[in-house]
Amino acid sequence: MQIHTDIEGMALALEWAAKGMYITTPNPRIGCVIVKDGVVIGAGHTQPAGQAHAEIQALRDAAERGNDVRGATAYVTLEPCSHHGRTPPCSNALVEAGLGRVVAAMTDPNPLVAGRGLAQLEAAGIAVTSGVLPEEAYELNIGFFSRMRRGRPWVRLKSAASLDGVTALASGESQWITGPQARQDGHAWRARACAILTGIGTVKTDDPQLTVRGIDTPRQPRRVIVDSKLEISLDAKILQGEPCWIVTAVPNAEKEARLRAAGHDLINLPNPAGKVDLPALMQELGRREINELHVEAGAKLNASLVREGCVDELLVYLAPCLIGAGQGMFALPPLAKLADRQKLAFHEFKQVGADVRILARFIKPEE
Amino acid sequence: MQIHTDIEGMALALEWAAKGMYITTPNPRIGCVIVKDGVVIGAGHTQPAGQAHAEIQALRDAAERGNDVRGATAYVTLEPCSHHGRTPPCSNALVEAGLGRVVAAMTDPNPLVAGRGLAQLEAAGIAVTSGVLPEEAYELNIGFFSRMRRGRPWVRLKSAASLDGVTALASGESQWITGPQARQDGHAWRARACAILTGIGTVKTDDPQLTVRGIDTPRQPRRVIVDSKLEISLDAKILQGEPCWIVTAVPNAEKEARLRAAGHDLINLPNPAGKVDLPALMQELGRREINELHVEAGAKLNASLVREGCVDELLVYLAPCLIGAGQGMFALPPLAKLADRQKLAFHEFKQVGADVRILARFIKPEE
Repeated sequence: MQIHTDIEGMALALEWAAKGMYITTPNPRIGCVIVKDGVVIGAGHTQPAGQAHAEIQALRDAAERGNDVRGATAYVTLEPCSHHGRTPPCSNALVEAGLGRVVAAMTDPNPLVAGRGLAQLEAAGIAVTSGVLPEEAYELNIGFFSRMRRGRPWVRLKSAASLDGVTALASGESQWITGPQARQDGHAWRARACAILTGIGTVKTDDPQLTVRGIDTPRQPRRVIVDSKLEISLDAKILQGEPCWIVTAVPNAEKEARLRAAGHDLINLPNPAGKVDLPALMQELGRREINELHVEAGAKLNASLVREGCVDELLVYLAPCLIGAGQGMFALPPLAKLADRQKLAFHEFKQVGADVRILARFIKPEE
Repeated sequence: MQIHTDIEGMALALEWAAKGMYITTPNPRIGCVIVKDGVVIGAGHTQPAGQAHAEIQALRDAAERGNDVRGATAYVTLEPCSHHGRTPPCSNALVEAGLGRVVAAMTDPNPLVAGRGLAQLEAAGIAVTSGVLPEEAYELNIGFFSRMRRGRPWVRLKSAASLDGVTALASGESQWITGPQARQDGHAWRARACAILTGIGTVKTDDPQLTVRGIDTPRQPRRVIVDSKLEISLDAKILQGEPCWIVTAVPNAEKEARLRAAGHDLINLPNPAGKVDLPALMQELGRREINELHVEAGAKLNASLVREGCVDELLVYLAPCLIGAGQGMFALPPLAKLADRQKLAFHEFKQVGADVRILARFIKPEE
């Protein structure tokens, strides 16, 4: 494969970055390819936290293949880090290796880097270009950037409904409105998230595990349960696997102790109404290094999250069918006027099996 | 423009066919291009009923431009007619003109033609090909084919809702959930239909005109109002323009007489429940040469049409917003089990302005 342009080089680096989709948390997914005379002589992507970054992987790959990187161009999907974190700075390694040029998709929003990585490279006499395919690089790490810029995760709320917006029959039956491909696609979105959030209503009604199944991933996202009154049964399926984070508003020392003894973590975050303070929870999840938060909840918690401005994106699967009377996606209260509706912008449509997947993002005037 | 392949020739003929979108009713929209040595020497499309068909238009165009059509190839989006209808048969004209070859997108479903047009051409020594871009040709005249094959129109039901499937606030406010581009697009779909159907509920609530506005069309579709108990006010806006067809289930001689005096037509089609017999109405509209029927009604009539198997296609505009509590698209009764849901297949997604347009077709096992 020959690389003739910066766009081609960066597109390949983005492919490498995507290979780290399920493993780099809480670090971003970064890819790096090293190109000399149009030939890819090294490539790599971020390893799990504490292990090598993409640039180091690519340099190692080139060395293992006996390639000389001096004077070559490195395409990196994010500005190389310039600080000592869990690993030494990548910018140093690139300078020492004698790279001739570094092309970055975008600068790092991490305030500890924020342009310093590129400046350091330039000071060492390396030619630097930034802003090649930045939208694609941003999308791949939208959660990391959200946490760096806003201190909270990128919150993606998933719902599956009929074309007329119904998620379950009046009787509660909801399995399965969408088809097997859409359900499998949903597991891929779970897998890329750092955490999956649901509510006590869903735990009581559906008793889900909320694990990732059918996706080749080495880690399961953290499960987070909003349970204001700590009503969860210790027999709930969600509590049987890896430890969960249970978010409460009303103290219950005895039950909390039993849940802690079973390995779970309790987070007490009441708001003045005696419910869980959802915006505060988002900040807490940011502090706990959650990049992407995947929500699968019922109409009530969905509506509360939306009303309190906690949701960034909807991931909606619509099935080609009509149900009519039944449960809606969001139990929002009646609006006084249409102008008060929750406004979004469509981001993507894709047919998945017989269903359609819609990504839509909330328009938040303050951001 | 050079034509090198049959696909290219037919694609151009389809473009010409589409020029007749608003004028050919109740005839199909047909296009014809005549090609000689790769050059288009004549082109035309169906004129209003009683005037020239596409083939005749293309022959005239060639003659007016001084082109010799002998030995040339004619691309026609439907098999040329072989019977005397309102006009003489086109197959005769093509033979007399000395065409060398005729390529048809598909054969004519009209039982009066049904392969005889092509057979007649072949018998006259003209080379014949059929089945080039037949899906595209079918879509352009889906209503005409429905009427020919099933004796009833192709019924397209339009709805506009928020992403969570709400068409109006609980208060009734619904103007406007979708944006100006989607509303204008809706007028284009109205314009291509032979008739627009609504119910007395919508007439009472919204008092719409249901005319085509902002589209360059020489004719307005017929407005059809389902009004079982003949409750319509003679002051309703829909009754002020061109004559309507009002469909009733309960006789009311005095009011019927007043409506007839105002130029409107009354159709009495009761079912045993004292409502309008909707499947019988579809047959009646087929007899009245309605090819495409465009439905814009409320949740009740929408649901009745769907339940009685009268709807072929949904044209749904979803706006990027959430409303929550409000009115749904279809007032269908609660289902006993999910397996009983109304099943569709998605046909097309298109972003129109800020909204998404979804075409979905009902899966009818009997067809």
